[in-house]
Amino acid sequence: MLEHLKHDVCAANLQLPALGLVTFTWGNVSGIDRESGLVAIKPSGVEYDGLTPGILPVLRLEDGEQVSGDLKPSSDALTHLELYRSFPDIGGVAHTHSRWATIFAQAHAAIPPLGTTHADYFYGEVPCTRPLTDAEISGDYEVETGKVIAETFDEIDPESTPATLVAGHGPFTWGKDAAQAVMSAAILEEVAFMAWHTLVIGAGFAPTPSHPGEPSASSAFQHMQQSLLDKHYLRKHGKDAYYGQG
Amino acid sequence: MLEHLKHDVCAANLQLPALGLVTFTWGNVSGIDRESGLVAIKPSGVEYDGLTPGILPVLRLEDGEQVSGDLKPSSDALTHLELYRSFPDIGGVAHTHSRWATIFAQAHAAIPPLGTTHADYFYGEVPCTRPLTDAEISGDYEVETGKVIAETFDEIDPESTPATLVAGHGPFTWGKDAAQAVMSAAILEEVAFMAWHTLVIGAGFAPTPSHPGEPSASSAFQHMQQSLLDKHYLRKHGKDAYYGQG
Amino acid sequence: MLEHLKHDVCAANLQLPALGLVTFTWGNVSGIDRESGLVAIKPSGVEYDGLTPGILPVLRLEDGEQVSGDLKPSSDALTHLELYRSFPDIGGVAHTHSRWATIFAQAHAAIPPLGTTHADYFYGEVPCTRPLTDAEISGDYEVETGKVIAETFDEIDPESTPATLVAGHGPFTWGKDAAQAVMSAAILEEVAFMAWHTLVIGAGFAPTPSHPGEPSASSAFQHMQQSLLDKHYLRKHGKDAYYGQG
Amino acid sequence: MLEHLKHDVCAANLQLPALGLVTFTWGNVSGIDRESGLVAIKPSGVEYDGLTPGILPVLRLEDGEQVSGDLKPSSDALTHLELYRSFPDIGGVAHTHSRWATIFAQAHAAIPPLGTTHADYFYGEVPCTRPLTDAEISGDYEVETGKVIAETFDEIDPESTPATLVAGHGPFTWGKDAAQAVMSAAILEEVAFMAWHTLVIGAGFAPTPSHPGEPSASSAFQHMQQSLLDKHYLRKHGKDAYYGQG
Repeated sequence: MLEHLKHDVCAANLQLPALGLVTFTWGNVSGIDRESGLVAIKPSGVEYDGLTPGILPVLRLEDGEQVSGDLKPSSDALTHLELYRSFPDIGGVAHTHSRWATIFAQAHAAIPPLGTTHADYFYGEVPCTRPLTDAEISGDYEVETGKVIAETFDEIDPESTPATLVAGHGPFTWGKDAAQAVMSAAILEEVAFMAWHTLVIGAGFAPTPSHPGEPSASSAFQHMQQSLLDKHYLRKHGKDAYYGQG
Repeated sequence: MLEHLKHDVCAANLQLPALGLVTFTWGNVSGIDRESGLVAIKPSGVEYDGLTPGILPVLRLEDGEQVSGDLKPSSDALTHLELYRSFPDIGGVAHTHSRWATIFAQAHAAIPPLGTTHADYFYGEVPCTRPLTDAEISGDYEVETGKVIAETFDEIDPESTPATLVAGHGPFTWGKDAAQAVMSAAILEEVAFMAWHTLVIGAGFAPTPSHPGEPSASSAFQHMQQSLLDKHYLRKHGKDAYYGQG
Repeated sequence: MLEHLKHDVCAANLQLPALGLVTFTWGNVSGIDRESGLVAIKPSGVEYDGLTPGILPVLRLEDGEQVSGDLKPSSDALTHLELYRSFPDIGGVAHTHSRWATIFAQAHAAIPPLGTTHADYFYGEVPCTRPLTDAEISGDYEVETGKVIAETFDEIDPESTPATLVAGHGPFTWGKDAAQAVMSAAILEEVAFMAWHTLVIGAGFAPTPSHPGEPSASSAFQHMQQSLLDKHYLRKHGKDAYYGQG
Repeated sequence: MLEHLKHDVCAANLQLPALGLVTFTWGNVSGIDRESGLVAIKPSGVEYDGLTPGILPVLRLEDGEQVSGDLKPSSDALTHLELYRSFPDIGGVAHTHSRWATIFAQAHAAIPPLGTTHADYFYGEVPCTRPLTDAEISGDYEVETGKVIAETFDEIDPESTPATLVAGHGPFTWGKDAAQAVMSAAILEEVAFMAWHTLVIGAGFAPTPSHPGEPSASSAFQHMQQSLLDKHYLRKHGKDAYYGQG
């Protein structure tokens, strides 16, 4: 089974450059086998070109020990492990410095739900963590990064919002497996692109809407209607979903 | 004849990724055979890679019944049907989440005509619908989406403005057939890109125009001259058109 | 000799899509043989894919008469002719709706010289024409477009500034031949892209420069130093140029 | 050894178009052999397509004399030489007009460190020089450009910040060899892109962060925490680095 996991995690890592989500070696994907409690992850600083399943380091979730592979794991590995501990239902984690999600992270800003593209995949805003404290940064930095993400999801369901922004850093996304984690990263990037431009054009640049009773342009765009968010998310997810071939 | 329709509708759907108008499976095109009252449309959630004419679902305009095909039609199918009912002269409909048109839709803003590129194809602003009410969203959502588009065109000719933005959602475009509907979507995207950047740079960032008597930069760009809009639209459309090889 | 001209003009037209300057059929390049007073130009509404030298219409500068070719010339042909009449030293003209130059045209704004990239090719701002009057638009529109460009260059040397923006429309560029006209169009596009983003970031978004005595960010970027403009333009152009292999 | 140098410098120059950092012939890379004091550099105005190691001009650092090659060196060669004199530990220099770094240069603005992508490579802001004086511009311009860069780094370590912006011009970057100089240019471009969009969205467009005690959005993004900057730079650089395979 671990061969299967390493194969899937390797393929998911290779999707990062294919989808335009990484520059150079910036980004890493992992997947977990919940039965054995083992996590396969990209090695640190290795080019995507030479990535094969056989070279992936494997870590034990319980204590972070590396149980196979000669290469050092991604320097963000301990953040991945922390996420697997905090979110017991997820099977894959992706971290990138993809441009648009990182821009929101650098602005310490959540991505508000502004349209149905967002609502089709994220059931509410994609939150941004609080900045880490100096103590957290100088301490066990990568573990603390995972903890601050978990803290951010105290009152948010990580399954219906499979993404977050770490303040001053960039996005972490997840899913039922490594491939889904990468898919969340790709959709987050598209949603972030459109949110950025909606927020700017909506802030007084666009002509005022002329529909009677509609809020002014500069507030209308701040958050989509809750009913529309519900409709689109639930059209694609959950027991009453009717999108796709079922 | 339906083979011909399905072939054209399939080809038009495949133009969406070719023209960079869709990400993943977001987008769908349909075409209608007015004689038989039958509509061929993309199946729901199917990758463009595997799309062939033979798998397209066919629906009856009259009552929405699926008359052929094993796959479920696009979840937006009822919006398409409503548009065919409201605009009896159109033969194709396209829906995308293309980036720039969707940004205006998310900002609840029409795209004003700001230059001759716009005027060559759209005879006036590309309107944005009012937001749907909660009752419309929780009711027959896709049908209501079509109805609110029709309402938006109460005093606009859908032939000379073959596109609209649905507030908080994205663009719907149309034309005499499926290929023309996709062409409208592609041109809308280009026009939206240029409008976005014109509105921002025009809003006080650009140096003030120095031509005596000209309105200030921050208003000059808000709407092009009506005479120039007329000139360019009518240079390409209608009985006195002189663009192209006639 | 006309075969040579048609070959060069065809090749220059094909550079437009190769350089990303046109969408669909939007754009046209012409070249003139000054000895015979004949102008070869792209035919109207023809795809670039099928463009060959043999099908190019040829017009007489003197009276605009078509002297060879079965296809109608570009609908902008009379503007090209007017430019050849007004600027007797140019040998090629290009017109596009390239995105960034068109955005400035739609904002009725000149492109100020903001850096050495601009100064390497354009010796001062790239001007924007005044808007045409309603009478000019409803009259001999394409000729009047040429005239308003000429009027804009009353006190500007068209050789050292081989480009303009027509208000509400888009760029016209020129050069010693058709290839140079297209090169001007490509450089204008790059310069416009950088000017747009410089004007926005400079208008209060960028951190204030800290160099004592330097003007504030919100004015520093409005126009580069005249001495730097001189230096870079004259490093590449004129008798004292020392760029390139001479 | 010079064959090796010319080979590396040629390869590094060819990386500029491969990484999307240059348009036409705008950009040049050099490398130095410190033992012999000889510098190989791109020839002036030559297309990248025809660039081979054998045609690279070689200059003597001591006095700028050309010791081999028939072609004239880049018109920016004297700036390169000045940088090798001022920064004795560097082995390669790159100059481009890459879009995003040039935009900051044109705005006379430094690129503040706004996130960990920046911190992974640049240990503090990427500074912008003061504008050159008219006397410097009309004097020994290219040498003065090098001198103003050196002046800018009076209190900055060029090894930990291997990049600068020359006001009104564009970026110069460096590294231990020509390849590293180009890598710095590529990363600078990505960092500049994200900084531009962070500064704009952070300046009041993004929703206000809701974390208690956090500075407001419009100031939070102005500079990342010093502790986070330290952590990420030192995670990758220096004796305690733990990124990569060591």
